[in-house]
Amino acid sequence: MHIFYTPDITQNTYTLNEEESKHCVRVLRLPVGTIVNLVDGRGGFYTAEITSDNPKKVILFIKQVEREFHKRNHYLHIAVAPTKNIDRIEWFLEKATELGIDEITPIISHRSERRIVKEDRLNKVITSAVKQSIKAYHPKLNEAISFKEFLKIPFDGDMLIAHCIDNEEKKYISELIVPQHKYLVLIGPEGDFTPEEVNLALKKGFKALTLGNNRLRTETAALAACFEINYLNRNEKS
Amino acid sequence: MHIFYTPDITQNTYTLNEEESKHCVRVLRLPVGTIVNLVDGRGGFYTAEITSDNPKKVILFIKQVEREFHKRNHYLHIAVAPTKNIDRIEWFLEKATELGIDEITPIISHRSERRIVKEDRLNKVITSAVKQSIKAYHPKLNEAISFKEFLKIPFDGDMLIAHCIDNEEKKYISELIVPQHKYLVLIGPEGDFTPEEVNLALKKGFKALTLGNNRLRTETAALAACFEINYLNRNEKS
Repeated sequence: MHIFYTPDITQNTYTLNEEESKHCVRVLRLPVGTIVNLVDGRGGFYTAEITSDNPKKVILFIKQVEREFHKRNHYLHIAVAPTKNIDRIEWFLEKATELGIDEITPIISHRSERRIVKEDRLNKVITSAVKQSIKAYHPKLNEAISFKEFLKIPFDGDMLIAHCIDNEEKKYISELIVPQHKYLVLIGPEGDFTPEEVNLALKKGFKALTLGNNRLRTETAALAACFEINYLNRNEKS
Repeated sequence: MHIFYTPDITQNTYTLNEEESKHCVRVLRLPVGTIVNLVDGRGGFYTAEITSDNPKKVILFIKQVEREFHKRNHYLHIAVAPTKNIDRIEWFLEKATELGIDEITPIISHRSERRIVKEDRLNKVITSAVKQSIKAYHPKLNEAISFKEFLKIPFDGDMLIAHCIDNEEKKYISELIVPQHKYLVLIGPEGDFTPEEVNLALKKGFKALTLGNNRLRTETAALAACFEINYLNRNEKS
């Protein structure tokens, strides 16, 4: 199955941009008449036929549309401090997209070693995972923001913070969330959040979570939280 | 906390090899008298003091030993087809070590694009994750083996196989396993197991599992199975 990401699709025909057209004709070598699939990132899953294989502008005719394709029963927003080695956040984005996530915000906290993020590059990683795992919804990547500014943004749902400070009360996600709800999870940098940052979040109504006794890297903790929340919302019919 | 991996520790003193000694003295710049920690990979967690900082052979005096440090309540063996891009299996090994795994076997199946694995290199990845996440038990990495040969090895525990063939009965791991048990999970290559391979495994007593509706890459499926089995065995006291 060949998938193209077409966020700006509106008509019953769609013209691939030059890069995608070249990929379609020169790399994939798809001839006129080939049936391909498109996802628009907003829940639309399309079946289309190649009607022109011009390597600069391939034209696709939409034959079928499915709306709200594999719509999720909950909304997960993870705000994570980008890792010093950006590859680690890139793989988190790829894996979280495969497992299911709706929104990601890079947060710059007091102990963040990395304070600059190239959102364009991270978005490319997400888009490629969207295509590879056939997701009709494209996770939203926000611009990096400071932890304190981020806490000022209101959120209507279950708000959780993961931290490693001992002797603080923490609960498992399963004890803290309501199923099929909206969730916001904060994941700190390699050096963890500062006690001040944790207290600030608790004052704002965030609840402290534990992911178990393992000592997890930032990106592993973020993925574990993503996995656990998806697991707790899974429809147990196989 | 500085951690050293000392699998051959037997006495109440230990001499770091030349590479580790150099790292200890030249890179970490740890002086005589510094307290460090050692893990032997067999459950031993040691507190030791540097008594000689010779950059070619650092000598450590063991002050305290904790046996069965964070012993796990179950045994997880994942047999996974190595990915074409070996980085993907390397990160699986790192993440699985962080989250908890006991044994890994690279299996070469009919559709495996990669048929050769450098176990030494993969073991280094595991060891570095063992130190980073402070695990006293070092996961065991077996030599690569063909899928058919692997199935001939008897296993006493819950045996599961993940595959993507439609219209076959599959159940969630939670429906298939007994808690605090031994588990063996088979994860196929990018192109999935062949129907013949799946049938062979089912005949051997493996049960088909589903990880949900997401289309997961090989290494993501392996990590998802690792996460789910650890989750199902988690002691729900926080």
